[in-house]
Amino acid sequence: MIYLDNAATSFPKPSKVYDEVMRCMKNYCSNPGRASHDMAIESSLKVMETRELISDLFNIDNPFNIIFTSNATEALNIGIKGILDKGDHVISTVIEHNSVLRPLKTMSKIGVEVTLIACDKAGFINPLDIKDEIKHNTKAIVINHASNVLGSVQDINTIGKIAKKYGVIFMVDASQSAGCIDIDVKRDNIDLLAFPGHKGLLGPQGTGGLYIGEGLNLKTIKEGGTGSSSNSMNQPIELPDKLESGTLNTPGIAGLCEGVKFIKKIGIANIYKEEMLLIEHLLKELKKLSFVKIYGTKALNNNLSVLSFNIDGVDASRVGEELNEAGIAIRTGYHCAALIHKVIGTEYLGTIRVSPGCFNTSNDIEELVKYLIKIYKSN
Amino acid sequence: MIYLDNAATSFPKPSKVYDEVMRCMKNYCSNPGRASHDMAIESSLKVMETRELISDLFNIDNPFNIIFTSNATEALNIGIKGILDKGDHVISTVIEHNSVLRPLKTMSKIGVEVTLIACDKAGFINPLDIKDEIKHNTKAIVINHASNVLGSVQDINTIGKIAKKYGVIFMVDASQSAGCIDIDVKRDNIDLLAFPGHKGLLGPQGTGGLYIGEGLNLKTIKEGGTGSSSNSMNQPIELPDKLESGTLNTPGIAGLCEGVKFIKKIGIANIYKEEMLLIEHLLKELKKLSFVKIYGTKALNNNLSVLSFNIDGVDASRVGEELNEAGIAIRTGYHCAALIHKVIGTEYLGTIRVSPGCFNTSNDIEELVKYLIKIYKSN
Repeated sequence: MIYLDNAATSFPKPSKVYDEVMRCMKNYCSNPGRASHDMAIESSLKVMETRELISDLFNIDNPFNIIFTSNATEALNIGIKGILDKGDHVISTVIEHNSVLRPLKTMSKIGVEVTLIACDKAGFINPLDIKDEIKHNTKAIVINHASNVLGSVQDINTIGKIAKKYGVIFMVDASQSAGCIDIDVKRDNIDLLAFPGHKGLLGPQGTGGLYIGEGLNLKTIKEGGTGSSSNSMNQPIELPDKLESGTLNTPGIAGLCEGVKFIKKIGIANIYKEEMLLIEHLLKELKKLSFVKIYGTKALNNNLSVLSFNIDGVDASRVGEELNEAGIAIRTGYHCAALIHKVIGTEYLGTIRVSPGCFNTSNDIEELVKYLIKIYKSN
Repeated sequence: MIYLDNAATSFPKPSKVYDEVMRCMKNYCSNPGRASHDMAIESSLKVMETRELISDLFNIDNPFNIIFTSNATEALNIGIKGILDKGDHVISTVIEHNSVLRPLKTMSKIGVEVTLIACDKAGFINPLDIKDEIKHNTKAIVINHASNVLGSVQDINTIGKIAKKYGVIFMVDASQSAGCIDIDVKRDNIDLLAFPGHKGLLGPQGTGGLYIGEGLNLKTIKEGGTGSSSNSMNQPIELPDKLESGTLNTPGIAGLCEGVKFIKKIGIANIYKEEMLLIEHLLKELKKLSFVKIYGTKALNNNLSVLSFNIDGVDASRVGEELNEAGIAIRTGYHCAALIHKVIGTEYLGTIRVSPGCFNTSNDIEELVKYLIKIYKSN
């Protein structure tokens, strides 16, 4: 199968990811931080190694400021619910994924004021619009780094500067960008960074994480066994234990460790370049086809490897099904982003979304285009 | 290594668990419920198959009443926080794991009244003590099915009858028992059943679940993308989507599927019998040693395969270290159960905990006993 659904889960993974998941499961998969036997220690060391590698990737000083979660959604919930209280104001955008919009909706029900900034048809917000909305009770700005519908990449550096200037917590949803675009929590003044392990970081599903800036004191949404302060009913106050209750997904994290190593070896800039060559190739070909309506920017100056479009007269879902029959995996629909479709005019259509990864080739793109033409002609 | 720490994570797993995790990761690991291509469909079908197998195991009618979580701790948090509101009263016990005690502590801070029932030195609560505590605002009873410190198994059938009679929600923490003891949500009148995937169900870490009885309407602790109602900011109200936001751990669940199949093939009663032979063997040998102080019941009539003890004059942690040097993995300390140690008199000692699994042999027990004697003599 030609897999072009990497915005959902990257596939395939580097071979060492598979190998380490299996090595962990078959040899040392015990409870990290819970016992003193060799297997538990090896599990702990592997988790720690992964924490350190991710810290290095995002320029985080203290690896313990990263907590592991089951996916980015969990990380976003922990961050959003951890910092916001009744009476607080939070600024976000209409291009967010439901993993931000839906927790914000929950918070609005308990008295958090939510402002959603508009974006243009190309999928970009204007950082100055954010600045204009900051008021006395603005606690946080929550921003989708890169859209999972349009691939547009927001200027988080400028937004981070605004957040810092006004003393507002800056939270970034790096679900699409982590591992694909260079992120530096210091340079970009990021206080909370949520990321999945199973997308750009090339790890297994069941992994993700949240970076929590020094001095931020998050409320917990889950408590439980942490291996530490075991004889106390009180949740530990230290990170990562405070926000990491229950047995971690050690084999998943072990695989993620190898995913991050692969990214470091190849280099994020190189991965980005490879993926952009593919998406530019696709864009160039689609532009030649009069029956294709492309959404978002046509320039790809500030984008990553995600493109949405539709074919005149053929439902997106039908295109998806026919591509699947041809052995090509893409995604169609609304992509769990409730508000952006009104902006781009697809609120009753959804889109066909193509998201190449670093293991795709230009041949994959050519095959896709060939079948798109075929599908249009036969419908 | 002789692994006797199965109460934390079972090890090893049946070989098909490893195989299916790898088959999933290498062949079809995409996003279940998120796209219409073959890989996503295969992921969905595998998740559904696992839901059905677990439903069958616990006598649950509707597989959609099971949600997958990253571990039992998450399931317990979702259940406890989903049902309790300010002003409610909840009854639990002192033998609970911190995955229950700590969320209850959080709930007590928002005005939930918590009553913790005492247990005897053998680790058993008296169901009548629960009945005596039920009052007008009692919303739920939350009970540890089997203790991770003493192995004592509570009479959930009687407690379930009491809960039903008084119209109280009955929640069972099956962290130690799922896969080891027969559980029937109908027979035992269970409304909420939390279970890990990586212990008795023989699946990988990063898996667990919660059964939610028909008609229970839980509040969410996490919201986000569900693949359903994708163009709405509202969290779906249907199960499992309502409580399953974000990408699932498909390879973990695929492995769990094989773990449950293995259990069904061997039979829970047979697994229980095998494990009890081991723990009875251990108990018999330990009883011969005058320097060993055994905690909990000495009869094993209502127990599972977990035993706690100490050795006169040697710190539990030192015993753990020396056993580890001898290639034997056990756990020492407080085992994330804050309150039971006061009952058994180990609040300043912790215990040495041994938890054989279905892949251990009596030779493993003999080796352990041999080294325990050696350690006592050399200290």
